[in-house]
Amino acid sequence: MMRNLLKLPLMYLIAITVLFTTPTQAADPLPSWKDGKTKASIITFVKAVTDKQSADFVAPAERIATFDNDGTLWTEQPMYTQLSFALDRITQMAPQHPDWASKQPFKAVLDKDMKTLAASGEKGLLELVVASHSGMSTESFEAIVLDWFSQARHPRFKRPYTEMAYQPMLELLAFLRANEFKTYIVSGGGVEFMRPITESVYGVPPEQVVGSSIKTQYEVQDGKPTLVRLGEIGFINDKTGKPVAINDHIGRRPIAAFGNSDGDQQMLEWTAAGDGARLMMLVFHDDKDREYAYGPAGGQPESSSGHFSQELMDKAKKNNWNVISMKNDWKKVFPDKK
Amino acid sequence: MMRNLLKLPLMYLIAITVLFTTPTQAADPLPSWKDGKTKASIITFVKAVTDKQSADFVAPAERIATFDNDGTLWTEQPMYTQLSFALDRITQMAPQHPDWASKQPFKAVLDKDMKTLAASGEKGLLELVVASHSGMSTESFEAIVLDWFSQARHPRFKRPYTEMAYQPMLELLAFLRANEFKTYIVSGGGVEFMRPITESVYGVPPEQVVGSSIKTQYEVQDGKPTLVRLGEIGFINDKTGKPVAINDHIGRRPIAAFGNSDGDQQMLEWTAAGDGARLMMLVFHDDKDREYAYGPAGGQPESSSGHFSQELMDKAKKNNWNVISMKNDWKKVFPDKK
Repeated sequence: MMRNLLKLPLMYLIAITVLFTTPTQAADPLPSWKDGKTKASIITFVKAVTDKQSADFVAPAERIATFDNDGTLWTEQPMYTQLSFALDRITQMAPQHPDWASKQPFKAVLDKDMKTLAASGEKGLLELVVASHSGMSTESFEAIVLDWFSQARHPRFKRPYTEMAYQPMLELLAFLRANEFKTYIVSGGGVEFMRPITESVYGVPPEQVVGSSIKTQYEVQDGKPTLVRLGEIGFINDKTGKPVAINDHIGRRPIAAFGNSDGDQQMLEWTAAGDGARLMMLVFHDDKDREYAYGPAGGQPESSSGHFSQELMDKAKKNNWNVISMKNDWKKVFPDKK
Repeated sequence: MMRNLLKLPLMYLIAITVLFTTPTQAADPLPSWKDGKTKASIITFVKAVTDKQSADFVAPAERIATFDNDGTLWTEQPMYTQLSFALDRITQMAPQHPDWASKQPFKAVLDKDMKTLAASGEKGLLELVVASHSGMSTESFEAIVLDWFSQARHPRFKRPYTEMAYQPMLELLAFLRANEFKTYIVSGGGVEFMRPITESVYGVPPEQVVGSSIKTQYEVQDGKPTLVRLGEIGFINDKTGKPVAINDHIGRRPIAAFGNSDGDQQMLEWTAAGDGARLMMLVFHDDKDREYAYGPAGGQPESSSGHFSQELMDKAKKNNWNVISMKNDWKKVFPDKK
């Protein structure tokens, strides 16, 4: 009896400990972020907009956060993931296109001549993307994309591209959603290249992915309604295109925006120009050992994917946009291997 | 004491009555729909896709329902609400455009010469829409739209246009959302004309409104990031454009679609072509007394807004799409006056 009486308060004590102490101890929602100014700016912002007593409180419906994808949520080196997909597709499709053996930029792809390929510029790359991404139904394209992701591996890290997302950014996405934010991807990448994997990789459903697109056409083929991907670019979601697409798709101004290159500047400007508390952040790649280091901001080497100019760095400093140093702000870069 | 003892069970009884009986009695989620085949088809479909034991169960994330707006969710007679807005704007803007006094189709608007206006056709109407909807920032346009809605009244019913939504359809939207559907508006109307009022009228947030659009351009004006509405149509969200826009904005195929005219045929076809249980419905306007009657299906008079052809009616019957008779399926058409 005596023991039972003693047990009861002890059980309560344990219950109280579990209920109140454990959540506090486990409360760090961003464990892969080092403590410091950058992490604190995230926490402070989220507290301000979610605290009903705060002058900066924002209703959940207006808590829109937009994320660039390449270089912001996952690695964009040594080339954009989608370009890697396009090159693999071109190689795979070559037997049906004998003319490619002597036609640039296709020849460069088949010869693995990256120098000539790079020299073909944006025009050449778009030609490759259009050739490899069109001429099939949207459903066939989705199957092709999923098949590629299941097989392709990153050349340096030897991991599936779906594991090349940044662990700290995955935590940030989850933290924002836990605070009733709606998280959107607003990327220069093709919307139908990203959608098949954004839910499983980022927890972002297809309707919250905004991207570049190829024109599609509705046709009834043998009685079956089909959306056919045409060989023509519909929209390029980059630079000034990002605020345009945000307005078109979301119809609300974000209160938080995340990017990593000059292509994201206008999205951050547009976000910053709204009233009330705002959070603008740029991932700066200064971690050659764990990922890559490129700029040219900070005197780092130029890169063909993800151009972070010194002008953008100066603008960020002037406007108090947060620059995330991959090297100094992140404890780890990639998720643990599964 | 005796009275108290008697009171206690009575209070329980009342509590039990309130808790269990009232919800069952009040369980009709569609009180403005008459009992019958049409209403039953809605209830049966929703039960099938939400019942985990059903072979037709659909995960909440995939429960996408798309609604046309004009003639499906609110009145489109005697002219589209947005056309009424455009005509008012033209009249209001006329002093700044002296050339309009002698230039068609503007002259017809200023002369209230509806016959000449109608004769200007789709080209003339687009010219009016572009002239009245462009040349300002997206924010200014929103303010103009809200101001108009606060003042304009429907010519026959003398009510604000925001009260011209159909009560049975409002109940349907709410019923679907209560069953974890995401409800979208997919309309030929201008997306930025609809968004300012869709949340308050329909409970549909801006990011779930897909429509036609004018091109916008990002500019920094006096240091202020601005989206300017250009005098050029961006996208016409009608007929084959609807499945294209659904794919672009939502990236999932709807499992339920609602329309009222030939412009919705492809949206319903696209919805119907998916696997599993589907619900396709067309509102048929056969209620001259309470609203309007037009077709030409069923031998009803032609109308310049909302063309429900005999071919569409035949297609609906052949494919078991539900045709909603406004006259026979709805107990009431409009919400009670506030």
